[in-house]
Amino acid sequence: MTTPESNVELVDAGQLTLDLIEAQYGLKNTRGQKNAKSLVILVSGIELAGKGEAVKQLREWVDPRYLRVKADPPYMMQKNQAFWQPYTRYIPAEGQMIVMFGNWYSDLLATALHVSEPMDDTLFDAYVAQMNAFEQDLKNNHVDVIKVWFDLSWKSLQKRLDKMDVEEQRWHKLHGLDWRNKKQYDNVQKLRQRFTDDWLIIDCEDAEVRDQQFAQAILKNLKHLPHYPTQVKTKWKQAEVPKALLAPATAEMSSEDYKAELKSLSKKVAKAMRFDPRKVLITFEGMDAAGKGGAIKRIVKKLDPREYGIYTIAAPEKYELARPYLWRFWTKLLEDEKISIFDRTWYGRVLVERIEGFATPVEWQRAYDEINRFEKDLSDNQYIIVKFWLAISKDEQELRFKAREETPHKRFKITEDDWRNRSHWDDYLNAAADMLQRTNTFYAPWHVIATNDKYSARVEVLKAILKQLKAD
Amino acid sequence: MTTPESNVELVDAGQLTLDLIEAQYGLKNTRGQKNAKSLVILVSGIELAGKGEAVKQLREWVDPRYLRVKADPPYMMQKNQAFWQPYTRYIPAEGQMIVMFGNWYSDLLATALHVSEPMDDTLFDAYVAQMNAFEQDLKNNHVDVIKVWFDLSWKSLQKRLDKMDVEEQRWHKLHGLDWRNKKQYDNVQKLRQRFTDDWLIIDCEDAEVRDQQFAQAILKNLKHLPHYPTQVKTKWKQAEVPKALLAPATAEMSSEDYKAELKSLSKKVAKAMRFDPRKVLITFEGMDAAGKGGAIKRIVKKLDPREYGIYTIAAPEKYELARPYLWRFWTKLLEDEKISIFDRTWYGRVLVERIEGFATPVEWQRAYDEINRFEKDLSDNQYIIVKFWLAISKDEQELRFKAREETPHKRFKITEDDWRNRSHWDDYLNAAADMLQRTNTFYAPWHVIATNDKYSARVEVLKAILKQLKAD
Repeated sequence: MTTPESNVELVDAGQLTLDLIEAQYGLKNTRGQKNAKSLVILVSGIELAGKGEAVKQLREWVDPRYLRVKADPPYMMQKNQAFWQPYTRYIPAEGQMIVMFGNWYSDLLATALHVSEPMDDTLFDAYVAQMNAFEQDLKNNHVDVIKVWFDLSWKSLQKRLDKMDVEEQRWHKLHGLDWRNKKQYDNVQKLRQRFTDDWLIIDCEDAEVRDQQFAQAILKNLKHLPHYPTQVKTKWKQAEVPKALLAPATAEMSSEDYKAELKSLSKKVAKAMRFDPRKVLITFEGMDAAGKGGAIKRIVKKLDPREYGIYTIAAPEKYELARPYLWRFWTKLLEDEKISIFDRTWYGRVLVERIEGFATPVEWQRAYDEINRFEKDLSDNQYIIVKFWLAISKDEQELRFKAREETPHKRFKITEDDWRNRSHWDDYLNAAADMLQRTNTFYAPWHVIATNDKYSARVEVLKAILKQLKAD
Repeated sequence: MTTPESNVELVDAGQLTLDLIEAQYGLKNTRGQKNAKSLVILVSGIELAGKGEAVKQLREWVDPRYLRVKADPPYMMQKNQAFWQPYTRYIPAEGQMIVMFGNWYSDLLATALHVSEPMDDTLFDAYVAQMNAFEQDLKNNHVDVIKVWFDLSWKSLQKRLDKMDVEEQRWHKLHGLDWRNKKQYDNVQKLRQRFTDDWLIIDCEDAEVRDQQFAQAILKNLKHLPHYPTQVKTKWKQAEVPKALLAPATAEMSSEDYKAELKSLSKKVAKAMRFDPRKVLITFEGMDAAGKGGAIKRIVKKLDPREYGIYTIAAPEKYELARPYLWRFWTKLLEDEKISIFDRTWYGRVLVERIEGFATPVEWQRAYDEINRFEKDLSDNQYIIVKFWLAISKDEQELRFKAREETPHKRFKITEDDWRNRSHWDDYLNAAADMLQRTNTFYAPWHVIATNDKYSARVEVLKAILKQLKAD
């Protein structure tokens, strides 16, 4: 049968459950395959429309062990967290799915409804655009997103409120909204229409229609396994390698000058970072032995060890590879960490992963925009981002490699990988050139530091931080 | 030179840093080796003694990228979290180390000092005993623990308080204690002496002595790589396999009776779990195809999907194998989850890991006590633990395997592993018998359910939950 309102054909529940379970195991089997995906289901809607019941019914129809459900009270959109930060750790690995009751849209709605001043439409729409872009990035990186709005008319809502008993009220958290207030109801409807264009809207008048429409939409999505293109259409325009990378200009500094400069600069840097109202994110890329570790040591010299975290990025683990490549960085950015320093970063996508072929051309060519958006979201939410490329000459690298091999406490720092990377020297220079050209944004600028002379390099790093913090 | 107070020989700082870095890389290289370990450094002490400074100096001497530092304000010892719950997620993988400023002892101290009524000595000592046992379990499972108390005399503390300026005060969080109050100082000293017997106590009168004593202790520990015994000394006393496992008594139930019973029981179970003040932890073990999934489905039938989480346990991943085997369960128990259901559990240690040889005899034979302690800690902190062994006969399993292979939506449930496990049938029965005998505690009892008849099995599971919740 077809219901007139929604054009949903009610199917046999027994068949539906068989189809859902089969599709669910089909999804599980995509793990590690070319058509892999995971599924994030965002649910929102009018109170008492029955989104809880629809998910409950779905969980009865599928194998509940492979459908995770996440529910949190809404986070107010804060100026110190990007909208995706509370959620990224729940993004499932390929082959898995999750229903998110609390999600970035419910946060936006709650914030718009609860702030003392009404949220400006332009700001609201800007958030929605950011959210859509984030979801597109998820989709490109094997995480499908399906969004469902459970709708209910004003009249039916009032009837359901009349019938609700005390125990039920306990389980329907009304998020402090007065659903008896027609003006507020209209306001919710008006606001949600600003973002639900690409949502499945379910009219929840009838419970059976609601549950079937929801489950059938999930089924359809589960069956649809994406094709991810690996070939690009146009030829890649390689950026010219800047002189600063080809032949890093070496300014030599005496030991005395260095010590004096370091003493004063490291104090200034500590103070500037500590008292800046923003969170500080400092990232390092560069050839092996360019001096990342040494620079980091000087940045933290005058900090209390409780004020900062250092993240040393190595090859991803299996559980990280089953998620978008940014996932392991999303989840390392802690809400309460004031200063975070990354020794190697997300730029691995367009450096080592590009060069070694771990990312397809489509993937790494798309990554520049993804990374820019990622950094923009952080920058919009109280992060100041200071990015370093440490530029060393090929000869100087060789000298340092050999010195490391001969020095007991440094020989652990050098491995066969380092020599192998060195054999790709020109590839890395080209990749770095493209990266610098495409990700040098006003909100997250690159600093290229010549490091053949260690002393002046460290001093320059500290000065660059001060400059970007406007504390010089 | 040797200082008279502490017998610390001050060594050349240059040599110390070389030794520390070498030892640090030595630790890194243990990963995956037989002598692997990670290192947790707990630091506590009198305010202004300088534990922050000592860690800062340590971080300058070592490679700071491989020394993580964790600092949190103290958690009050709560009745709904075991003392280790806020910390387990920070327990490092083999080859890594972390300094924990906030730790279970600082929580205990803060709680004892801040509760309106003084904490009973017996309770305090019981906590300390639990903490020591937990640390011993960590050590046995490749996580070394070193504990350092930074001490300062009353006189010196007062002098340092006199000299402290405003900016300094900002970075020394005094946790609301009045360090000008001699009585309170004495109380801290009295309390900490109840747990610092096996700690390194550093007298912090002199900063250089303090920093060197601390760093030298870490160096000594880094150099000491443990030997983990793999051979047991005595013969294992195999428990007799109970009849309930050998020949599960099958009570057949008609479809009508089942439906009626299920309807009433699933409602009762939902209500009982929802309104019980404790958190509910339900675990399932049993042969493949014994009906774990089906039983779980009926437990959650009348629950809102937001009220519970289901955890399906498969083989551990690499990052999980680099930590104690309980780690992946510790970190799944969420503070705010009311009902957690595990489809396979930590008992894998004494079942599949024992049988397949993934755990050595020493390891699995020790695991019974470790698991009992783990469950006791949870039970002491507002968890009710309901454990099920689903007992099926070998013939019935074969029937179900074949049925699964022939049913489209079930054929995904059967793999070669299942047939392989079946070939170890008697080993599993023996392992289950040992497990039931050694981990059937009053705070976390086992329920053995005969499952040859699916209907009666599901009903029995629900009844057992009600019984243990005293809601039948």
